[in-house]
Amino acid sequence: MYLSKLFIPLLKETPSEAKIKSHQLMLRAGMVKQSSTGIYSWLPLGFKIMKKIEQIVREEQNKIGAQELLMPTIQSAEIWKESGRYDEYGEEMLRIKDRQGKEMLYGPTNEELITEIFRSSVKSYKSLPQLLYHIQWKFRDELRPRFGVMRCKEFFMKDAYSFDLNDDEAKKSYNKMFFAYLNTFKRLGLTAIPMEADTGPIGGDLSHEFVILAETGESQIYSDKRIFDIDINKHDNSDGSIKELRKKYDEFYAVTDDKFKKEDFEKKVKKENQLITKGIEVGHIFYFGDKYSKPLDCSVDLQDGKKVNVKMGSYGIGVSRLVGAIIEAKFNNNIMKWPFSVSPFDIAIIPSLQKNDKSNYLKAEKVYKFLVKNKIDVLFDDTNEHLSAKFKKFDLIGIPYQIILGSKSTEDKFEFKEINGKTENLSSEEIKNKLLNKRNFN
Amino acid sequence: MYLSKLFIPLLKETPSEAKIKSHQLMLRAGMVKQSSTGIYSWLPLGFKIMKKIEQIVREEQNKIGAQELLMPTIQSAEIWKESGRYDEYGEEMLRIKDRQGKEMLYGPTNEELITEIFRSSVKSYKSLPQLLYHIQWKFRDELRPRFGVMRCKEFFMKDAYSFDLNDDEAKKSYNKMFFAYLNTFKRLGLTAIPMEADTGPIGGDLSHEFVILAETGESQIYSDKRIFDIDINKHDNSDGSIKELRKKYDEFYAVTDDKFKKEDFEKKVKKENQLITKGIEVGHIFYFGDKYSKPLDCSVDLQDGKKVNVKMGSYGIGVSRLVGAIIEAKFNNNIMKWPFSVSPFDIAIIPSLQKNDKSNYLKAEKVYKFLVKNKIDVLFDDTNEHLSAKFKKFDLIGIPYQIILGSKSTEDKFEFKEINGKTENLSSEEIKNKLLNKRNFN
Repeated sequence: MYLSKLFIPLLKETPSEAKIKSHQLMLRAGMVKQSSTGIYSWLPLGFKIMKKIEQIVREEQNKIGAQELLMPTIQSAEIWKESGRYDEYGEEMLRIKDRQGKEMLYGPTNEELITEIFRSSVKSYKSLPQLLYHIQWKFRDELRPRFGVMRCKEFFMKDAYSFDLNDDEAKKSYNKMFFAYLNTFKRLGLTAIPMEADTGPIGGDLSHEFVILAETGESQIYSDKRIFDIDINKHDNSDGSIKELRKKYDEFYAVTDDKFKKEDFEKKVKKENQLITKGIEVGHIFYFGDKYSKPLDCSVDLQDGKKVNVKMGSYGIGVSRLVGAIIEAKFNNNIMKWPFSVSPFDIAIIPSLQKNDKSNYLKAEKVYKFLVKNKIDVLFDDTNEHLSAKFKKFDLIGIPYQIILGSKSTEDKFEFKEINGKTENLSSEEIKNKLLNKRNFN
Repeated sequence: MYLSKLFIPLLKETPSEAKIKSHQLMLRAGMVKQSSTGIYSWLPLGFKIMKKIEQIVREEQNKIGAQELLMPTIQSAEIWKESGRYDEYGEEMLRIKDRQGKEMLYGPTNEELITEIFRSSVKSYKSLPQLLYHIQWKFRDELRPRFGVMRCKEFFMKDAYSFDLNDDEAKKSYNKMFFAYLNTFKRLGLTAIPMEADTGPIGGDLSHEFVILAETGESQIYSDKRIFDIDINKHDNSDGSIKELRKKYDEFYAVTDDKFKKEDFEKKVKKENQLITKGIEVGHIFYFGDKYSKPLDCSVDLQDGKKVNVKMGSYGIGVSRLVGAIIEAKFNNNIMKWPFSVSPFDIAIIPSLQKNDKSNYLKAEKVYKFLVKNKIDVLFDDTNEHLSAKFKKFDLIGIPYQIILGSKSTEDKFEFKEINGKTENLSSEEIKNKLLNKRNFN
């Protein structure tokens, strides 16, 4: 892609309404544009990043055998009345009347609808267990939307639902998701810690919030800092291995605000291991048994002819929120560096261009075409700005690798730089191989 | 994927509410489930097909240089008041009040919002032309939703918008989209004919509806049947070549109902070439100049310092509707055959399984694992049903290729069948190569 063609409205100044760095960067780098309070359009740069995050979330769900479907955004109020949440949910639910006066709503979550789909589709114990998920827009009519995409009204979320015959089986499903979440966040370049958490309006008695550390986070967390050293790579997705992994996490104290008890914390965590800080919630998983299957009468036939309500859990990841969360974790000293796995482009080519001398442009374009031919996604800065202005721009765009064609490049070796890393002089062939290796690793 | 694990609630009977064959098939094959009147959940089988269609639409948009972004589903009423369409649009617009009483709506189309994004982002003629698109859910509160996903309330649509300096440039953008649409439908296995059409609530004076022939279509069409013989493969995406292609189409009479004039038709089309039939609209493109850029004050600076309102067009493809349209075109004699490019799986393995004899199961599983290892997407029918019942199921699922392990297969040769085609005895290696070739061709 030629930068001159890219629809990327960069801002020179930080808009005053943006209080945290992810919001600031997303506006300045032309990633999103607010269309009305708490509702955003995703411009090409931000959209591309969100799509890459979505794809990683999807792949990790598929790996544990979850199946993707898609529920609509607009739901009938009826099933919410069956579960009892229509009245409970409060003003955050966007309530709608259609032209015939029928009560509808914009789904803030999907426990009711998935239960309704399941109860009319599955009749026998033989079809269990099942893991179903979708990645869909949700709406919560926040009273005070803030922090850009971190707390907005219309947001993109993966929500999964598990269906099992009994508590033991259901915990296996819960653990699978637990494992998938750890892998998902790892591929996104994040260290997310599962913390025991309150279940809130979803319900149930078992729940983990996945939290990444960030000063700007809205969750207060209390933990044993040794929990950060657990290595998930030592585990595979067999039930046994995942169970062991969960045990390791359970050994260390790690809770959010609402689960915090001072005396427990002091008793269980030595002074030198205590970590009290703020974090951003990027995922939340719940086990709630028959909380929805009972009122909605979702049951299956057992082998002996009896019926049993299925045991359910639900599992959310905020896909659009993750774009902001990654920025909060990676944007430092006014320089952004996207993890390669979600970077909007693989590499940027930044040549110094003079008006009366085409040679550098041609050299840059040759490298560009070579890389594109090798299926590398390149952003080529073909504008006439000064190198220093270009660098400032690319500090915002955050592509982790750069090829700089300035004074130091020779005929066939170019300045190759990783943001915050060393500079090397490499040929286009060497650059290509480096990037393809990097991609295979991700 | 093992069929016993797939979430695919097949129905034995055709639900009485389904009047046309796509609606019938989609319910019977467990592709969708109605969640409330005119609103559907997409179950795994239907979802997978829709995603493949979406990806082809996306690729053809990208090929002509269009850039993808994503506008939200919920919009503020304000910009619709600026354009004058808030009052005009009528009851099909789903109007919403948020908790603060602010007037919002669920976007039925996006001319206003994209114009608003453009006017606040682009200031100079240098940034033109631009093609922007998104693929997003839309809502139209149909009074009488019917025909399943063909005329429903919540639907998935690609809408693109072009921005140019003057009419001549704008027509080039229009033609590019015209070309992209023909290629898109071709890759979907459809012959879609561009027909001169009325512009309706979008406005403007130049418009084509892309129509595929189908008895159940809601569009009445009148055309010279020689228009079906135009070969788009002879054209590339240069402006000149596309212009020539458009000329070829313009030579033949082809209009929808509202543009039809009997005397023109009789004069321009010889009796033996006249085709009067019904069709399904799968795409619609519009050129409307400054219809939105003027009231919304969307302009750019020219080289001489003057300002000019940008000239715009908009371009829609009904992605979810296409799932139904392809069925209408391809489901015949109770047998569905998906075009390979959008088939939910590449191939099905259908073994005859006996309770007390594992040998056929093991043989089938060996082929399955071999193909999966070679990145072929296989649905393996591991259920204990009789072969005849299995075949009936697969007539609905519509995977174009089958491997049948019945009496005719030997130790390493299997019955390979293309639906409606011949049967051959092939080795797994030969089957793999056949499918990989097929994929490269698509």
